[in-house]
Amino acid sequence: MTERPKVAIVGGGFGGLWAAQALAKMPVDVTLIDRKNHHVFQPLLYQVATAVLSPGEIAQPIRRILHRNKNTEVILGEVVGFDKEKRLVKLSGGEEVGYDYMVVAAGARHSYFGHDEWEAEAPGLKTLEDAVEIRRRVLMAFELAEREAYLTGVKKPLNFVIIGGGPTGVELAGAIADIARKALAKDFMAIDTTSARVVLFEGSDRVLGTFASDLSESAKKQLEDLGVEVRLNSFVTDVEEGRVKVGDEWVDCDVVLWATGVAASPLGKALGVETDRAGRVRVERDLSIPGNKDIFVIGDMVSLLQENGEPVPGVSPAAMQMGEATAANIRRDLKGEPRVKFTYVNKGTMATIGRSKAIAELGSLKFKGFIAWLMWLFLHVFFLIGFRNRFAVMFDWFWAYLTRERSARLITGDAGEMPVTLSQSSSTPDPKPARKPKSGKGKVR
Amino acid sequence: MTERPKVAIVGGGFGGLWAAQALAKMPVDVTLIDRKNHHVFQPLLYQVATAVLSPGEIAQPIRRILHRNKNTEVILGEVVGFDKEKRLVKLSGGEEVGYDYMVVAAGARHSYFGHDEWEAEAPGLKTLEDAVEIRRRVLMAFELAEREAYLTGVKKPLNFVIIGGGPTGVELAGAIADIARKALAKDFMAIDTTSARVVLFEGSDRVLGTFASDLSESAKKQLEDLGVEVRLNSFVTDVEEGRVKVGDEWVDCDVVLWATGVAASPLGKALGVETDRAGRVRVERDLSIPGNKDIFVIGDMVSLLQENGEPVPGVSPAAMQMGEATAANIRRDLKGEPRVKFTYVNKGTMATIGRSKAIAELGSLKFKGFIAWLMWLFLHVFFLIGFRNRFAVMFDWFWAYLTRERSARLITGDAGEMPVTLSQSSSTPDPKPARKPKSGKGKVR
Repeated sequence: MTERPKVAIVGGGFGGLWAAQALAKMPVDVTLIDRKNHHVFQPLLYQVATAVLSPGEIAQPIRRILHRNKNTEVILGEVVGFDKEKRLVKLSGGEEVGYDYMVVAAGARHSYFGHDEWEAEAPGLKTLEDAVEIRRRVLMAFELAEREAYLTGVKKPLNFVIIGGGPTGVELAGAIADIARKALAKDFMAIDTTSARVVLFEGSDRVLGTFASDLSESAKKQLEDLGVEVRLNSFVTDVEEGRVKVGDEWVDCDVVLWATGVAASPLGKALGVETDRAGRVRVERDLSIPGNKDIFVIGDMVSLLQENGEPVPGVSPAAMQMGEATAANIRRDLKGEPRVKFTYVNKGTMATIGRSKAIAELGSLKFKGFIAWLMWLFLHVFFLIGFRNRFAVMFDWFWAYLTRERSARLITGDAGEMPVTLSQSSSTPDPKPARKPKSGKGKVR
Repeated sequence: MTERPKVAIVGGGFGGLWAAQALAKMPVDVTLIDRKNHHVFQPLLYQVATAVLSPGEIAQPIRRILHRNKNTEVILGEVVGFDKEKRLVKLSGGEEVGYDYMVVAAGARHSYFGHDEWEAEAPGLKTLEDAVEIRRRVLMAFELAEREAYLTGVKKPLNFVIIGGGPTGVELAGAIADIARKALAKDFMAIDTTSARVVLFEGSDRVLGTFASDLSESAKKQLEDLGVEVRLNSFVTDVEEGRVKVGDEWVDCDVVLWATGVAASPLGKALGVETDRAGRVRVERDLSIPGNKDIFVIGDMVSLLQENGEPVPGVSPAAMQMGEATAANIRRDLKGEPRVKFTYVNKGTMATIGRSKAIAELGSLKFKGFIAWLMWLFLHVFFLIGFRNRFAVMFDWFWAYLTRERSARLITGDAGEMPVTLSQSSSTPDPKPARKPKSGKGKVR
């Protein structure tokens, strides 16, 4: 430990990483804490969930990404709380990390609107584990249908339901439709995978509601071209094993995926300041929390209105900009200069729908279809962290585009360990059922 | 179902796949059953365990590999037994698959010599799940040591113990030594990863005992060059949390890996014929079981002596050759020709030790070091199934060779969910602890 100010960063997502990078050249000591050893490139998570990419291709060890930052230590640990008086970050193992400045960037998950019991049936997509589980469920649905059709001659219809018409829901729906109609079609003998039904339910009157309405309209058409059934103004009122209730109608489904709602990390509430209904922290304009200039909250955990009255969106560019703005304000503090307000710069937004299908909005410019898709493609490869990943991803995309094959079609866990009904198989695969969990004793190694 | 003979193949490893390929052009209907949806290229499994390759790079969906075989159906399911009278394969879900010929190729796992309780502490390496779990333990050991050193200033020595000096043990030991000394060295600030101790225990008087003794000697030297401590004539007598007993000496360890012993699939015993101590089936020379010409057993499940009195080794080439020989005998049956005895053709054996280090034996020719390693490299890429995998693997190897980086350094599961001591962390990561396993009811979908 030196005499230099200590900056603790909680979370290695886009916000935390960009803050760490901006602090690398400043006279501070940085400790970045994350409960994973890797940063996940979330914009491509749905491609792992749909067997295009492997987990390793969209994730990099945080320690590796920051290994050139001589003033930065990365530690693996789960933050469970804070001591604002003593300026301590508390870890689950009982360890504490001191700080002079703290940057909380722990992100958000999907919200089940008070029905967390629905999650077992309808998983969301926020982590690599979520992605692998969703991939397993989607592939298992086809495998189980094939087995039953072959052994009993009964061909059950396959139904995939996606709840939420935001970017993630649209990406998942488009990709699953493509898997069923193209990637798997030739590999199954007993069932016709192209007859699988993919339904996207959206509560509002359009998908991708943050875009201009004509782009939403185009996105809906592009989804329908892929064979996705888009149902607007449809609220899910209940989720059960093998079916979901939409309004008063029950809809059968083999796989349900949840892609709506926002629930900020509970660490927001743990800060003891005002949060909104989604648990997002209402920060000051300099991104610090009320009454604590030394604590910043950034990224998806934040509820902040722009000058124009619009909320800062929960997107990765906003998190990156907040990370950099926070580092800049810490530098100003060190120089005795006044802090400046954070202003979000919207460099444009895009959403991908499927093979050669996307929409993009850059200021007043609007793009649809293939051009928008190409823009999306290059932008995402460009921003993907780590050369090796970038290369591998480009190769896989090129390969998938040429062959329409999915190169990462792995179901991990045994069919035996894995109960036969999909709902049961929601229990995660266990490599070693034989291994009983151990007693808590034993030293930290 | 047609009037053509039905051939049921149990297992999609090398034996089962090669049998299926050889049967593709014959007038039979083939059903291949495996409890995984993917074939794993086992010779490279240790590279997933040591973060060089991603699971997707050494595995392919079995359905994909065989999708051109019009007479072949692949189903995902766990075989739990047989009805030899009714000629039925029984699945865990209660389903049954009929056959006229059955080929059982369910492989083998490591044996703990009657101490299965050691497995939780000292996992073996046979499946992708094993590999990911071992990768997690190895990487976690470094992460936890770094955290403790950073937070408490206490630098505990890191000890990795590998039990068994066969090919897998040698590969794991060499790769872990390389990770500690090279791949991770620059990424950790609080600990010196190069000081990690890697010990390989072998019960006999040399490693890689199936090779000529001078090659074993060379392999030992090459391991020691990598920094591995090789201890011969050392029997493990007990395994506990954080330590193993060798002879009468207790050795501390953060990670123990098990790479010795053979336990054939229990399906061998389920056939109700004589098996050896390892549970391997004593097959007839035509690979059928005594008293049942319509049931063949092949691969690692088999105990068979060659003409020269030597046992057929449990290696992938032997499994492939048995698969083809079985298909050939089925064809002879159909043509009314007499069956022929199986003869194993040894095309040479090689073992890799680490970066630029290996040994190879081709007939009377012996190779050591870089040349042997190059031979190993090309042979394995050549045999790797699926063009895309081959390409991706070559790229990763090239990349790892240039940069000494490990591109797949992922620890999945949360640090929070993952208890802090390694022994505890042997419980496998659970992406969704929230998800409670479901009731057994519900139809096969």
